[in-house]
Amino acid sequence: MARTIQSLERAAAVLRLLAGGERRLGLSEVASALGLAKGTTHGLIRTLQQEGFVEQDADTGKYTLGAELLRLGNSYLDVHELRARALVWADDLARSSGESVYLGVLHQQGVLIVHHVFRPDDSRQVLEVGAMQPLHSTALGKVLAAYDPVAHSEAADAEREAFTEHTTTGLPEFEALLDLTRARGWASDIEETWEGVASVAAPVHDRRRMPVGAVCVTGAVERVCDGAEGVKAQTVAAVRDCARAVSRDLGSGRF
Amino acid sequence: MARTIQSLERAAAVLRLLAGGERRLGLSEVASALGLAKGTTHGLIRTLQQEGFVEQDADTGKYTLGAELLRLGNSYLDVHELRARALVWADDLARSSGESVYLGVLHQQGVLIVHHVFRPDDSRQVLEVGAMQPLHSTALGKVLAAYDPVAHSEAADAEREAFTEHTTTGLPEFEALLDLTRARGWASDIEETWEGVASVAAPVHDRRRMPVGAVCVTGAVERVCDGAEGVKAQTVAAVRDCARAVSRDLGSGRF
Repeated sequence: MARTIQSLERAAAVLRLLAGGERRLGLSEVASALGLAKGTTHGLIRTLQQEGFVEQDADTGKYTLGAELLRLGNSYLDVHELRARALVWADDLARSSGESVYLGVLHQQGVLIVHHVFRPDDSRQVLEVGAMQPLHSTALGKVLAAYDPVAHSEAADAEREAFTEHTTTGLPEFEALLDLTRARGWASDIEETWEGVASVAAPVHDRRRMPVGAVCVTGAVERVCDGAEGVKAQTVAAVRDCARAVSRDLGSGRF
Repeated sequence: MARTIQSLERAAAVLRLLAGGERRLGLSEVASALGLAKGTTHGLIRTLQQEGFVEQDADTGKYTLGAELLRLGNSYLDVHELRARALVWADDLARSSGESVYLGVLHQQGVLIVHHVFRPDDSRQVLEVGAMQPLHSTALGKVLAAYDPVAHSEAADAEREAFTEHTTTGLPEFEALLDLTRARGWASDIEETWEGVASVAAPVHDRRRMPVGAVCVTGAVERVCDGAEGVKAQTVAAVRDCARAVSRDLGSGRF
């Protein structure tokens, strides 16, 4: 069994540091945040810079993430089977629902958005591919936590932050939500993560019937929900149709 | 002067290998492609996997790039000043031209697309953010090669592949194109990279008047060009207006 390589782990820690919080850091700031000697840190950053993973601002001398990460991230998407299979179905779902569609997978302690179809109107929208969403409060996250044991552990063990007054934070209540999700086969998020935003998600399974991701429709609560009734039944049906179609394309349910 | 770290350079080589060509490789294939011992390669891949930079397919045991690269690539974009300043101007340019808009920067031996506004119609389009374009044949690449000495060296020293019968491959002809680009302040690509596609690009400068990127409009040659006249004058004007607006937002031309 090969051991892990310390310098690589440290380099990954530098990149994670630059990806969160301040995002423009000097050498001393990186060294002190990671508890490393300045010389060690300099060697790491110098190599990361040479490989395009880190860039240095000419004016301030501070370091940021580098362009090579964008290129590699795009290559990751190119080879992503779930995303490739979902492209056309997600487009159709955005058209039929008139709302934004996300495709998400479990990554670390959250949901990583791997595909985003804009709401089909002329409004200005920001692409969310590569962004992370919380597991415990979003429709995508609840579906992953309900069906994927690893996602479930992450969500159950984590501190479940109250983003709005509707966020479920207590463990028994959260587990009950997951039971409900499994019982009906979909999850919703009605202003539990963002004020004014509602989402509906359903799980995507692969040929081994493993939950490999989730698809959701998301939009203004006034459009996605039907007054006090919660999310519209036709939206739930459309999302579940899409998730089933993608799952079938991935080989799930074939005998 | 800190030295570079060999294991990090090798890890970067593994990621570059997985980003190009086959993209799904077994341990032996990675080891032999990089000329490393299998044990060494296993240690690298194991650590990359642990950090989320590499994933292993459960069915085949082959390795692919990992989700953490997508997350970090998105963080790179979040902190990208040129992109942030260009967002609104690029939207306006897509609206006024009715075509797709790209924002590109020099990366390695090509143009990295850091922003892409879809053509404002209902057609299905593929997001090109994170994709690379060649320097010598695209409008973005020619602008960068004309204004950025590093890009110029890359384009002049490289093998200039003929993608179509219109691609300029000879060095004297290429240098003449760059002279023309500098003389008029913009570059075009009329079916020099892709059959049927024409583009117009102009340079973006920062507060130190350095060329930090380029913006272009791209679309079907029938729409972007005006018969034998080449690209439409109004499209050239719109692209240059956009590039000037972004440059001004970056502090260029302020006294």
